[in-house]
Amino acid sequence: MEVRIPKRTLAEGLSILERIIPNRSSNPILTYLPIELSDTGLTLRGTNGEVDIEVRLPAEIQGSGQVLVPAQTFSQIVRSAPGELVELIFGQGSEGVKGAGAGATGERLELHSGAFNTQLSTTSPDGYPELSFSQPGTEKIAASRLAQAITRVRYAASTEEYRAIFRGVQLEMSPNGLRSVASDGFRLARYDLPLQLQTRKLVIPARSADEIVRVFKDAQGEVAFAVGEGSLTLVGESVRMAVKLMEGEFPDYARVIPQSFVLEATLAAEALRESLKRVAVLSDRNNHRVNLLFNDGKLDIDAEGDYGRGREELSIDSSGEPQLMVAYNAQYLIDALAPIEGAVRIKLSGPTSPSVVQAVEDTGYLAVVVPLRV
Amino acid sequence: MEVRIPKRTLAEGLSILERIIPNRSSNPILTYLPIELSDTGLTLRGTNGEVDIEVRLPAEIQGSGQVLVPAQTFSQIVRSAPGELVELIFGQGSEGVKGAGAGATGERLELHSGAFNTQLSTTSPDGYPELSFSQPGTEKIAASRLAQAITRVRYAASTEEYRAIFRGVQLEMSPNGLRSVASDGFRLARYDLPLQLQTRKLVIPARSADEIVRVFKDAQGEVAFAVGEGSLTLVGESVRMAVKLMEGEFPDYARVIPQSFVLEATLAAEALRESLKRVAVLSDRNNHRVNLLFNDGKLDIDAEGDYGRGREELSIDSSGEPQLMVAYNAQYLIDALAPIEGAVRIKLSGPTSPSVVQAVEDTGYLAVVVPLRV
Repeated sequence: MEVRIPKRTLAEGLSILERIIPNRSSNPILTYLPIELSDTGLTLRGTNGEVDIEVRLPAEIQGSGQVLVPAQTFSQIVRSAPGELVELIFGQGSEGVKGAGAGATGERLELHSGAFNTQLSTTSPDGYPELSFSQPGTEKIAASRLAQAITRVRYAASTEEYRAIFRGVQLEMSPNGLRSVASDGFRLARYDLPLQLQTRKLVIPARSADEIVRVFKDAQGEVAFAVGEGSLTLVGESVRMAVKLMEGEFPDYARVIPQSFVLEATLAAEALRESLKRVAVLSDRNNHRVNLLFNDGKLDIDAEGDYGRGREELSIDSSGEPQLMVAYNAQYLIDALAPIEGAVRIKLSGPTSPSVVQAVEDTGYLAVVVPLRV
Repeated sequence: MEVRIPKRTLAEGLSILERIIPNRSSNPILTYLPIELSDTGLTLRGTNGEVDIEVRLPAEIQGSGQVLVPAQTFSQIVRSAPGELVELIFGQGSEGVKGAGAGATGERLELHSGAFNTQLSTTSPDGYPELSFSQPGTEKIAASRLAQAITRVRYAASTEEYRAIFRGVQLEMSPNGLRSVASDGFRLARYDLPLQLQTRKLVIPARSADEIVRVFKDAQGEVAFAVGEGSLTLVGESVRMAVKLMEGEFPDYARVIPQSFVLEATLAAEALRESLKRVAVLSDRNNHRVNLLFNDGKLDIDAEGDYGRGREELSIDSSGEPQLMVAYNAQYLIDALAPIEGAVRIKLSGPTSPSVVQAVEDTGYLAVVVPLRV
């Protein structure tokens, strides 16, 4: 069993797995990295119990088989390898490395790169959990678009234990497209991607959703997928990923999205975001309250807390009521604006009922923010 | 009392103070920033009890006086100010900011920048500790050289509570120059800067030494200094700094620096450092032991730990004994090499007695590393 592989290819493969393979675990075998050699290339795997990942790398290979190596140590060694090429030789004993002495029993992996030689103890793959990936159908999504759909709404997912299903991101597939939704009860984010898909709903734990984004956001090509028993399998060009799904689905959230508005205002999202950040420095540290006074072509933003008061005025285009005052948690409004480039439209349904935040250009994105009570 | 000052100037001044002003303190007044206006400009101050800093900034000023503002909030506001210019107006009440209402009693600072307006509550400077800076003499050191003298040796200072005086960096001034020294008992670093100074010795706590480096490493010009009662005052172009000194001085450390050697080897410091980092990945996690075998124009580096063994061979120029094996804590050797650019000379006095590490070019730097016992 021998492998020759560019250091960079191997390091990139490991970087996909590194974040999910635990450094410590009550099940220590999970801290190991299964390496499999076969005709089709080098396969690396890892799991944290919630997310399984498998990476296939092209390599020059002789022989076939599977071993476990200590994941963290192996990654460190590969990253620090001095040569452009890394050679892996799996076997018994110590031949090939001059002077390998003490402890030279059992199975081992030799790694050669430039003048640097390493022998790593390896372990039998027996006892490593079976990673199960479902067989995907023919439906596909561009990898970067899938990541985008999650990223746009992820911020609104709840971090509170008691919020149950709202700690996830819901994906709704249908012949109309892919809709992603997240909410924590005080705000909601929704993103629509036009696509033709079979109808199904699933909820991905927010942390696993982050891993999907991390793996696929810069990936080329498309992702095929399969929804199995309680898990979603995603198959990209060189990566397979299975994430455990949450049970159940979001209760009817559409009813919190207001349909009629008393005032609509348009302005540059970036200017509003920066202004909110400045003014919020002075806001009350408990509720981060900022007051927005929409007033005849002007938006007055102000906040007051223990240390004083901040205020800034922006120009807006507005229609509807001439004047309206609404108070928000500044951070919620800043989060809702984050995915928006260019102009934002803020649609108010009243001083205490939910407001809608939408990009003027990217009509797929919609956020709802519930105002603070006056 | 009014100030007009470029945002950048003010933000840079604050960045010098921010790290030492505590966010929380058993003495809450220390979390405030004293701002003083006078004919000579705007003066900002701060202290953490160990280090006092005063920054003088050029500004357009009307009036004179001193107030305290909440340091963290003020810094955040200045950093986020939208305009290039910041205007500060000190006074009673709320004139100048439209609509300032609730809580508008007592003293306040108004900050204007672009369309952004802030009112901050201010506090009387009564009760803020007096910062005492001694009057410096005529001796001066280039700011960047002073920082360099500390940086070169700082790594060797002890982090162990019980090491007392060795938790500091010793500066030895004399007509021959400035010598900086640090040691933790297992290693020692010494750096000589040629200068003509009065003879004195002082020991700066390592953390305060870090602050000196931070403040002066990129500073232009020279630093004048004064050694007062238990404190060192440093006076730069726009910054004054006073640091509390440690009591006592290092015991005679010269005796641990070997004077005769059985083997001397020269090689590229960078190559050795990188090789040590690679091989050390496999080293024992307790003592980070690496074995260096100096052998007839070659240096064999190897390490062995729970997961396996790493090995690398480098070419060296050597003189003296044909062969010698020495074991080190890899991190100690990597630290000792860090300040060295170009070639390094390693001088061995034996397998268990201290080794000397020196730059071939920069002869001012010397490190001693005690080998691990075999």
